[in-house]
Parts: sequence; C-alpha cells; structure tokens
Amino acid sequence: MQHKLKIIPLGGVGEIGKNMTLLEYEDRILIIDCGMSFPDDEMPGIDVVIPDMTYLETNREKIVAMLITHGHEDHIGAIPYAMQKFRCPIYGTKFTNALIRHKLEENQLHDVQLTDVAPGDIVTLDKFKVDFIKTGHSIAGAVALAITTPIGTVIHTGDFKIDLTPMDGEPININRFAYYGTRGVLALLSDSTNVERPGFTQSEKEIGKTFESCFAQAKGRVIVATFASNVYRMQQVADVAIEHGRVLCFQGRSMEQVVKIATQLGYLKIPEDKLVRVDQLTRYRDEEICVITTGSQGEPMSGLFRMANATHRLNIGKGDTVIISASAIPGNELGVARVINQLYEKGANVVYDQMADVHVSGHACREELKLMLAITKPKYFIPVHGEARHLRMHAELGERMGVEKDRIFVPQLGNVIALTSRKGTMTETVPSGSVMVDGLANIEDAVLHDRKLLSEDGLVLAIITMDGETGRLCAPVEIISRGFVFMREAEELIAESTTLITEEAKRFEGANKNEYSAIKNAVKSRLKNYLYGKTHRSPMILPITIEI
Amino acid sequence: MQHKLKIIPLGGVGEIGKNMTLLEYEDRILIIDCGMSFPDDEMPGIDVVIPDMTYLETNREKIVAMLITHGHEDHIGAIPYAMQKFRCPIYGTKFTNALIRHKLEENQLHDVQLTDVAPGDIVTLDKFKVDFIKTGHSIAGAVALAITTPIGTVIHTGDFKIDLTPMDGEPININRFAYYGTRGVLALLSDSTNVERPGFTQSEKEIGKTFESCFAQAKGRVIVATFASNVYRMQQVADVAIEHGRVLCFQGRSMEQVVKIATQLGYLKIPEDKLVRVDQLTRYRDEEICVITTGSQGEPMSGLFRMANATHRLNIGKGDTVIISASAIPGNELGVARVINQLYEKGANVVYDQMADVHVSGHACREELKLMLAITKPKYFIPVHGEARHLRMHAELGERMGVEKDRIFVPQLGNVIALTSRKGTMTETVPSGSVMVDGLANIEDAVLHDRKLLSEDGLVLAIITMDGETGRLCAPVEIISRGFVFMREAEELIAESTTLITEEAKRFEGANKNEYSAIKNAVKSRLKNYLYGKTHRSPMILPITIEI
Repeated sequence: MQHKLKIIPLGGVGEIGKNMTLLEYEDRILIIDCGMSFPDDEMPGIDVVIPDMTYLETNREKIVAMLITHGHEDHIGAIPYAMQKFRCPIYGTKFTNALIRHKLEENQLHDVQLTDVAPGDIVTLDKFKVDFIKTGHSIAGAVALAITTPIGTVIHTGDFKIDLTPMDGEPININRFAYYGTRGVLALLSDSTNVERPGFTQSEKEIGKTFESCFAQAKGRVIVATFASNVYRMQQVADVAIEHGRVLCFQGRSMEQVVKIATQLGYLKIPEDKLVRVDQLTRYRDEEICVITTGSQGEPMSGLFRMANATHRLNIGKGDTVIISASAIPGNELGVARVINQLYEKGANVVYDQMADVHVSGHACREELKLMLAITKPKYFIPVHGEARHLRMHAELGERMGVEKDRIFVPQLGNVIALTSRKGTMTETVPSGSVMVDGLANIEDAVLHDRKLLSEDGLVLAIITMDGETGRLCAPVEIISRGFVFMREAEELIAESTTLITEEAKRFEGANKNEYSAIKNAVKSRLKNYLYGKTHRSPMILPITIEI
Repeated sequence: MQHKLKIIPLGGVGEIGKNMTLLEYEDRILIIDCGMSFPDDEMPGIDVVIPDMTYLETNREKIVAMLITHGHEDHIGAIPYAMQKFRCPIYGTKFTNALIRHKLEENQLHDVQLTDVAPGDIVTLDKFKVDFIKTGHSIAGAVALAITTPIGTVIHTGDFKIDLTPMDGEPININRFAYYGTRGVLALLSDSTNVERPGFTQSEKEIGKTFESCFAQAKGRVIVATFASNVYRMQQVADVAIEHGRVLCFQGRSMEQVVKIATQLGYLKIPEDKLVRVDQLTRYRDEEICVITTGSQGEPMSGLFRMANATHRLNIGKGDTVIISASAIPGNELGVARVINQLYEKGANVVYDQMADVHVSGHACREELKLMLAITKPKYFIPVHGEARHLRMHAELGERMGVEKDRIFVPQLGNVIALTSRKGTMTETVPSGSVMVDGLANIEDAVLHDRKLLSEDGLVLAIITMDGETGRLCAPVEIISRGFVFMREAEELIAESTTLITEEAKRFEGANKNEYSAIKNAVKSRLKNYLYGKTHRSPMILPITIEI
C-alpha cells in the first residue's frame, strides 16, 4: 500500500497571518514557515498571536526541518516561540536567515541551526527533496518551494507575485515551475491574498515614475513612509533621492535594523556618504533631505505618526512633501486617514495611494494566480494564505483552470489533507488554533478574561523588561495609558508611576520566570492604589513582563 | 458701506458627517442642512453626534429658514434636536421632507413647518432668493442651492455627482449652474468627499449590467444588501429581479420605512403583487425570491449580519447568491470582511465591490469637481464636506481651475468667512464643535467620562423606551451586551435581565423627564446586583432612556 502524504495547515488558512504548513510522510515532518499575527482590538495585553503547535510538540521526533519562504513577520515571527518548544534545522535564503538570526538573538536563542540556501539550490532532507525557486515579493530573498516526495512533488508558492521587471533584476523563475508542471505536480499550495483583484499586479518599477515626479516637484524635505522590510522600495526611493541631490536618513527602529542587515548582505546599495543620522540633518538644507521612515499604517508609536504629531525631532510642516508608499492593511484605514489629515493640517504636501501610484502589492492578482495554475497543472490544489472568502474564490479559480473539483481542498486550521497519487481526503484533524502570547509566556487561558477587561476608567499598561538570565530590569519601565485621560497632571503621574514600578520591579531582581506573576501582582496592586489616591479613578492595570 | 455676507460652517468641514452651514447677511440667517454623525469607538453610550448649535440658539431671532439639500442622515439627522432648541420653517424636496417628517414624528415634534419645493422652484426668503437646482446623488430628491443675496449669488452644491443617465431620467441641471456662472457667482461651496478620486463617477445605470449577469446565473435565492435610503439602487435591483421572475422582500427596519415612503411618493415603482412579506416567502421556490436588505456595512444588528449568523429567519446558506451593493465606509472594512467570510463559510456565492461593479459612489470625482468649478466660475471658493485632506486637495483644485489663491478658504468648524464683492476674510469664529447625544439629552460634559468607561467585564446596555407624554414604557426593554461573554447562559440571563428592568422601569411609570436619571440609577444598581449574583462579573452597565 502506498503511504499517504499529509498536508496540514496550522496557520494562514481562514485568516491572513501566522502562516505555517506541515508536510508529513512516513512519520517525517517538514515545516513550511512559522509566522505570527498581530493581535486585534479584542485582545488587550496580547503581544502577538502564534499558531498552536501542540501537534509538533507531541511529534517532535518526527520533525526533519523548517523551510522558510521569506522574512516577513507572518512567516518568521513565531520561530523564537517554536524554538523554545522544539529544535530543528532551519533553511532559508541569506536575507531571510539574517532576519531570523536577529530575531533569535533578541530572544537569546544562540544555538539554532540556520542554513543559507540560494534560489536554485536543491536540498535533500530525509525523504524530501526541496527545490528553492526564486519568486518575487515585497521583500528580498523570497522563494517558493518544490518539495519532491516519494509520491510526487508538492509546490508551495509562498507569498509571490510575477514581477517581470523586479528591482533585483532577476524575475521569478517561471521555467522552474514549468519544469515541474511538465513532469507532473501532485499538489499546489498557492497564495490567495489578492485573488479578489483582477489582472496583474504592477511591477515594482512602475511606481518609480511617481517617485521621480514627486522628487522633481518637491521644494522642501521629502519624507517617505513605507514598510520596514521592503528593501526594494527603499532602494528605489534612495536612487531617486540621490539623483535629486538629497541625502538619506532612515527612521524607525525596525527599519534601521533592516537597513543594516540588507546593506551588509548587499541587498541595499546606498553610498555611505549619502547616509546620515537624524542629528546630522541640520547640516543640510531642506531640499537636500530625504527621510525614509516607518509608520505607513498610521501606527501610534511609529516614525511618521510622531513626525505628524510634533513628538519627533523631525516635526513635519509647511513645505515638506510626505509620500506614503503603502496601502492601508484592513483595519488600519482610519489610522492612516488620521495621519494624512494631520499632515494636511500642518500644511505638508501629502502623496498617498488613493491619489497616485506610490505602492504596488507584493501578491499575485487573478491573472498571475491563473498563470501559476496553468504552468504547474497540479493534480490536487490547496489555496492557502487567505481568509475564508479568498480561499473559496481561489478554489473556484482552480476549478475553472481545470483542476477536478474533488481534488481541490479548502482547509481550515488543523485539517489533515491526506494524498496518494490516486486519492485525496480531508477527514482527520490535529490540534490547532491561535495562541496568544504575552512576552514569551503563552497565556491562552487568560485571553477570554483579558478580552472582557475593557476597564472602567481606561487602561494603564506597565511594561517591565527583564533580563531572563539575571532577572534584572534591563530597560526603563514604560507606562502607556489608553482612555485614562489625565489631562494636565499626566506627565507627573506617569513619571511617578514609572518610578514606583521601577522600585517594585527592583525588589524582585534575580527573580526567575516562575516569579513573573508575583511581580505582576505586586505592580498591579501598587499602581492601582497610587493612581486611585491621585485621581480617584481605577483604570484597568495590565502589567506586562518582557523577558529579553 | 457694503454689508458683509457671512458663511459659517458648523459641521461637515474637517470631517465627513453632520453637515451644517450658515449664511448670514444683515442679521438674517439661513441654515443649510442639519445633519448628524455616528459616534466612533471612543464614545460609548453615545447615540449620535450633532453640531454645536449654540450660535443659533443665541441668535434664534435672526433665523429665517432651514434649507435641506437631501435626506441623508448627515444632512437631516440633527433636525429633531435643532427643533427642540429653536423653530424655523424647513424647505426641502418632497422625498427629503417625507423623511424629515417621519423623523420629527418619531420625536413627537408635530408642529414644525415643512415646505415642499420642486427642483427649479425659486423661493424668496427675506433678503435671500433661493433656487433649488436638480442634482444627482445616491438618494432621490437631491438639490443644490443657488442663493442670491444683495451682494451676489452663493452656490452650495450639497452632495452631488454628475450622472448623465440617472435612474430617474432627469440629469443634474447643468444649464442652471451655467446660468449663474455666466451671470457671476460670488462663492461656491462644493462637496469634497471624492476629491481623491480621478476621473468621473460611474453612472448608477452602469452597474445594472452586473445585476443582470448575477441574476442570470443565480440558481437559488438572491439577497442584495445596500444602503437603506438608496431608492435608485432598490429600483434597479427590483427591475432586474422581476424580469428574472422573482418576488421582492425588503428586510431591515430603516429600509422598510424608506420603501414605504418612496412608494407612496412614487419614487419607487414596484408592482404590488411582486412585494411579499418575509413570512410569505415559504410559498415561493428559492429561484423565485429576491431579498433586499440592510447590512451592507456589516453592522452587527442589521439584516445581512443576522442572515449570515443564523439569527434571522432567512438563514443564508449553500445555493444563495449575496450581492453587497455598497462599498465599506472608512472604519467598517473589517466588519464587512467578516460578514463576507461568514457568508463564504456557509457556502453562499458572494458578489461584492472588490470583485465586480456592484456599487457606484454618489459623490463627484475630480473631473466632475473641475466641471463644477469651470461652469460656476466662482469669485470665492470654499470646499466643504470633507476631512482636512479633502478640503486642502479641493482647494488646490480650485486654484488650478483659476480661482485666486487668496479667495479660497479652507475653513474649520466655526470659522466665519466674511465676504464683500471685493474682499474676503476669515478671522472671526463662533462657538462650534461636536455635541454627543444620549437619547434626546445632550450630555456633552459626560462624554469624557463615558469615554473612559471601557468596563472591566464588558458592557451591558439596557435600553428603556418611554413615552414622553405618559411616562410609560412604550416598547420592550432591550438588553445588548458587548465583551461580556455569557456563553451558554446568555439567553436566560438576557431574558431575566429584561424582565427585571421592565419591572424596575414600570415602577417609574408616569415619570417625567426630570426623573430619568433616577430611573437610570435604579436600573443600573438592580442589574449590577443581578448580574454579579449570576456570573460573578461586573460589566459596565449603561442604562439608556429613549423618549418617544
């Protein structure tokens, strides 16, 4: 009897975010991606959301390796959490691995085996032969996977688009997909994010024209907000800025980090004399300055937000041109609109996606998805990376492209798709779902409780950052409040609260992980009494301990 | 010395919603529109947001009349509140006035003077001569206003688009705008909502093709969700549905109300034998049924939401085709996406604006806005109906269309734009802002407090509807909860709470308005004790009294 190949999505189906898929054959498991999501408004106190990995924990001896398609958070964000539960070698391209390495180091995980692969490399892992195929996406180093198993080849596209004039000069390797399509593909797992959009996604280079004309017209500073990881976009902006006699200043912690890594690895090429720090900008005239920053989603603590609200040394004002080179991720629309309005109110000239071509998506639209189906001609088709509607629509597209209806599977999290060369079923399930994470501790059970806490007088967060080794405070305590409006006394109250919590946390120095809840309780009761005494209000207090 | 004409926006600038503009000349005030906004997430317990009308209250003897451009809530919603503060005659077209009349009656305001005008009518009101000009918008009966004052003519477009093939067969009266343009227009106030969008807004008729093909392909029931007030859209859907042998069933309180009014006035023409009630639908086969419903914004209590969540007798499922004929209003994107996903999960076929032309906007895009400027050739230009970015962009468009820069005013709420035929200034201000309303009582001061109340264990609303005359309960008490997850016990708890509150409210029968706060306090404490006893949780309890 032929063994079955099992395909098990643990994340990224029925949702956009925290992608993770397993391939299992004869007790050998390959993991594809290991991503996180950001919590929504209904999950106060939660840092990130990761896939439920119970199945992997209980089958840790079967795990062969983890393959990463690219370095976006929804593909790599859960790796540190996973590596605390089990260990396995990780394979990714150079840039992807550099981002993973940084993340592991931040979490004091120094002994994880990371192997760099280049697009075109073929790696044999137990019963699997993995071909890393160059694709295009909004981050450097993206690959698809062609995984040949004893019963056939499975192609997982990762996130992709078909950009025939990409910034790195090397388009998606269509011929390699065609090679497998001609030989015969058992199953295709394909990115469904943009299945609602007709046509072809524009090439990254297309928006260069808009940058050209914006820079040509700009008389003051130019500030460009985009995603921290989009190296191609940064390169494009940098090229145009330098051409127009401007120096470059990157702002935003995550962006500065990516710039550092991308420059080291040669993905980002900016002459050193054109890069300046923010404190050096005073040496230049406005028309010689280009700032590239985070905050394209209107995030409250981001670079752009602070520049629009005069809480950043680069206070945006009259004469400045701001380009928001991104589109709003669903749920962020109001935040983005608010920042744009603020910038207009301050007299800046704002260019954003509703008025000009300043952004292209990193995901394939319908014609590209059809092309992928046409080239690979899969026997079985499994749409992934999408909410319910995306997966259904992509399934219909697959049917129209000639995949037999009973060979198309629209899975939910934890469904096991069991394939032989002749038959596919989806009947079993494995444990799955979302795990909410506070710092590094899973608090799944506390979530429902937290969600209910919407607090009588608003919310006060006390963030305490501890060194996991020494148990010492390793960063200043941070107090953040929402809905708890202090008015004039705010500054003093926050300063005093900070002192108080710092004191309290220091009492626990040397504490180990098991004592974190004691710290939290102590902090909570101390802060509660203090704030009540000062304001006669009782905000919800949420102490958060972060272990570094 | 020439008298000044003052133009004072009390709503609709720096925001989308609660439109209201004053024209004041020689101690005579004309009010244009009187709208409301819906509260955002930061205003718990608030029913609606209306403009601060302090200036009108203190100058009530100067008010000549209120002119209403059309019947959308953001243009008529605050009329009942205004009519409790001051009285003046109201002028609007037949359909607009019918909607206003309904609203006034709901609020027991029976003696307000409403005068119907027809497009083309010219009405002299004191020193003002008002010409009601036919325009096009997503509601029947929309007009612009050309108001001739002793120092010149002011044109206020209202909400408009230039639809040359509208559903009612009568396009916007461009020639009338041209008439004033040729004679000379002192000032133009124009709708800025869609200034970000290039080109021309599609004609309402364009989307008829999509409906045609959806109905031609649909094998089961067809459910169309759209805005309750869009009579043109309903007519269009009804025509196609009847052509395909289907009967029509309208769902959603607000929609059923509009259908009744529009049918009476002849704006909606549906043969009586094609209209069926929801309980009659069992007589028809699925392919003979078309349901038109509210809920196009994913609103939790709406028709579509309940049909998608199996809490409506029309439980949508496999074989049904759902058309969401609307686009998401900013802030509603996630709610709309959630409903679409639910419908897909239930196996319905869903058609929505990202995948097909099922909606057109009711507002003019850039080319139409340019056309309005080109035809009216105003001396002064004041963009209205828009957030900061819209107003600025529209101002720039005005400049490019030849209006002198120092004759363009981008006002904030309460700014007084004082015009003579030679000079315009914007230096004075009048009191202005947002007033939050709970029932019919302004609680402006309590808002900050409310905003802080985000509740420890979620939120329970108890809605008590009282007859203002008799002080009797005149509708069943309604209990709504958010974030206070009851799980299985929910039904019982809500039923018991309802009984309890009904009891409590009855104790106060015959109460007058001054006793409402006593009722609220009693309800709150009773419910709090009850819920705590049952669940050991203390949700925030917000009793709301509505006076009918």
